Amino acid sequence: MPHISLPEHLPGITGLLEYRLDTALPIRELTQILLRGESTLTPGERELIATLVSARNETRFCTAAHTKAADLLLGDDETARAVKQDYETAPVSEKMKALLAIAAHAQRSGKDVTPEAVERAKRAGATDREIHDTVLITALFCLYNKYVDGLASVTPTDPVYYQRLGERIVQGYKRPPGGFPVPPKM
Amino acid sequence: MPHISLPEHLPGITGLLEYRLDTALPIRELTQILLRGESTLTPGERELIATLVSARNETRFCTAAHTKAADLLLGDDETARAVKQDYETAPVSEKMKALLAIAAHAQRSGKDVTPEAVERAKRAGATDREIHDTVLITALFCLYNKYVDGLASVTPTDPVYYQRLGERIVQGYKRPPGGFPVPPKM
Repeated sequence: MPHISLPEHLPGITGLLEYRLDTALPIRELTQILLRGESTLTPGERELIATLVSARNETRFCTAAHTKAADLLLGDDETARAVKQDYETAPVSEKMKALLAIAAHAQRSGKDVTPEAVERAKRAGATDREIHDTVLITALFCLYNKYVDGLASVTPTDPVYYQRLGERIVQGYKRPPGGFPVPPKM
Repeated sequence: MPHISLPEHLPGITGLLEYRLDTALPIRELTQILLRGESTLTPGERELIATLVSARNETRFCTAAHTKAADLLLGDDETARAVKQDYETAPVSEKMKALLAIAAHAQRSGKDVTPEAVERAKRAGATDREIHDTVLITALFCLYNKYVDGLASVTPTDPVYYQRLGERIVQGYKRPPGGFPVPPKM
């Protein structure tokens, strides 16, 4: 049960974003710019960072939603699974492995991002902007994960829900005009 | 030395917010709404939450800046110091102690916010909105702390710098038209 009264039919982050619309707007805007805006990282690659961070924070709602978004954007359901298990052996580029390592460090603590980890990313071709965005995406998903878990919002178990939410997320992070998907069994 | 090339005269978060202005805008807006917008918590009380979270993440730049902002808003330099040392014995209300306890839990992990901690806050008179905002302020300052530390931005040591930055922050989180204060000795 959530720690505060939230719209009952809207689980996870969706009820929180409806609970306080004025704070939700800049959170959505930041996510839209970082995950879907112009970048030399594909939207699928950026969703892999969001997925890894959410998985390491053990926030099941965000992990399931962004795994599905990554699956849909990458066109397979293997890559995100492999990244969560061990990004060093996952089917992604050397640059992405180095960026995912930076994300894994920053998820624990900003101070854990070592010069060596940054040097590895630069050697693999990562730009300053890509390193910046990797750290900021990590920080943003730590915000989401703490928000979702810290208020004990509801986590649906039905995979059909995450399929529908993932399809919505693929389109972007602006407030959906038709509202959020409602879990089939809630 | 920062992990990426940042404006040399702008330390801590200030250089990062100038590095990517499009992502900085919603971060600033969210902070302005949460820390300075309408609330039953005073701006000083909200700065205490930001200070506690930054101190527990050991992000010296943010801790020094928000301690100074809290000092200026509360009109003393004892409360923030005491909150960082032990909020249970600090000169704040029972409601604030309970909200600071929630922030301390959420700083570790969203999952650490227990029903008992929330119940304690409610018994002390905290509203759902105050509990919500405490968790979101905590999540936001974890974002800031990871951003600042994850890119190894510079931390000035001169207290004069934080005095000037604190005075700026007291006025709000919008981009200062005259630019950020520049540390005296950089």
